[in-house]
Amino acid sequence: MVYIVNMRAEIKGSVLRRLKRVAGQVGGIVRMVEADRYCIDVITQIAAVRAALRRIEDEVLGDHVAHCVEDAITSGDRDEQRRKVAELMEVLGRASR
Amino acid sequence: MVYIVNMRAEIKGSVLRRLKRVAGQVGGIVRMVEADRYCIDVITQIAAVRAALRRIEDEVLGDHVAHCVEDAITSGDRDEQRRKVAELMEVLGRASR
Amino acid sequence: MVYIVNMRAEIKGSVLRRLKRVAGQVGGIVRMVEADRYCIDVITQIAAVRAALRRIEDEVLGDHVAHCVEDAITSGDRDEQRRKVAELMEVLGRASR
Amino acid sequence: MVYIVNMRAEIKGSVLRRLKRVAGQVGGIVRMVEADRYCIDVITQIAAVRAALRRIEDEVLGDHVAHCVEDAITSGDRDEQRRKVAELMEVLGRASR
Repeated sequence: MVYIVNMRAEIKGSVLRRLKRVAGQVGGIVRMVEADRYCIDVITQIAAVRAALRRIEDEVLGDHVAHCVEDAITSGDRDEQRRKVAELMEVLGRASR
Repeated sequence: MVYIVNMRAEIKGSVLRRLKRVAGQVGGIVRMVEADRYCIDVITQIAAVRAALRRIEDEVLGDHVAHCVEDAITSGDRDEQRRKVAELMEVLGRASR
Repeated sequence: MVYIVNMRAEIKGSVLRRLKRVAGQVGGIVRMVEADRYCIDVITQIAAVRAALRRIEDEVLGDHVAHCVEDAITSGDRDEQRRKVAELMEVLGRASR
Repeated sequence: MVYIVNMRAEIKGSVLRRLKRVAGQVGGIVRMVEADRYCIDVITQIAAVRAALRRIEDEVLGDHVAHCVEDAITSGDRDEQRRKVAELMEVLGRASR
């Protein structure tokens, strides 16, 4: 039995678009540094990319709970449920969140 | 008078190298999502990139304080000093730090 | 049916001891401010109390997952399980964590 | 010469009032735990106290920058200015902010 259900198609499209935008932003920061732009402007852009990544994480996580965790609940498989809760605790408990 | 002093050459090289590594990691996450990899693994990778960006920010900021802020102090220009302190407060006070 | 299981006795004792220590520390900060102690020292003490509170939260949360969430899993009650997951997401997803 | 200027009277009054409210809230949490209240409610209250402490910190820090740091700038004493910047970096750079 497999309970791993991946991102739904609509979330996947949105996440890919946002990740590609982030890739473009990182390229822009590389050019800022190469062009000797002011440190504080560089820092501000890096912080904006971190915030964008955080929002992508939250989108993936919301989808995960709505689907993968929900499937574990519906399955009635207690060990799988325990694994899902342990995973959530680990992801959400990280200091950098 | 101009007090804006940019990143020193050695920091610039290190920051560029690390930013390019981040660009590669973001490309890797795009491929993970395209390949339908497990949500939690995607989240873990995004969190790792955020942590790497945070360390780059800290490197740029440390250099900024060591040089741009130090120059403002040496200059004796009080308005410039006030601007630097206000900038630092804004950058460091951000909720996402 | 009741799935709410409260803190175990040993955790309760530890949490109470730590909360009372926090209460003492807050009293100490009040005295520091009254005695016009240096701002940065006051800030450092407040940050220490916040960190202590965060550790107490983590202790209560760890016990909650080990017991209340575990009971929801063992119960097989899916609605209760959904409630527990939603609660965990809310608690852990808070920006201030 | 002494550049340490402490909290202004109006800030001091506000900070003391808020700290005393926090002390009351901590006492309330002790009673919640003694009364075996639900873990998630206890966690929510602790998080509220942490947020209140964070706001007090920000109030003290804002006053510090407006006064102590400003005095260091006005003094023209470069070593004092360097010390203030180093202090700010340390306080603001803490991971728990």
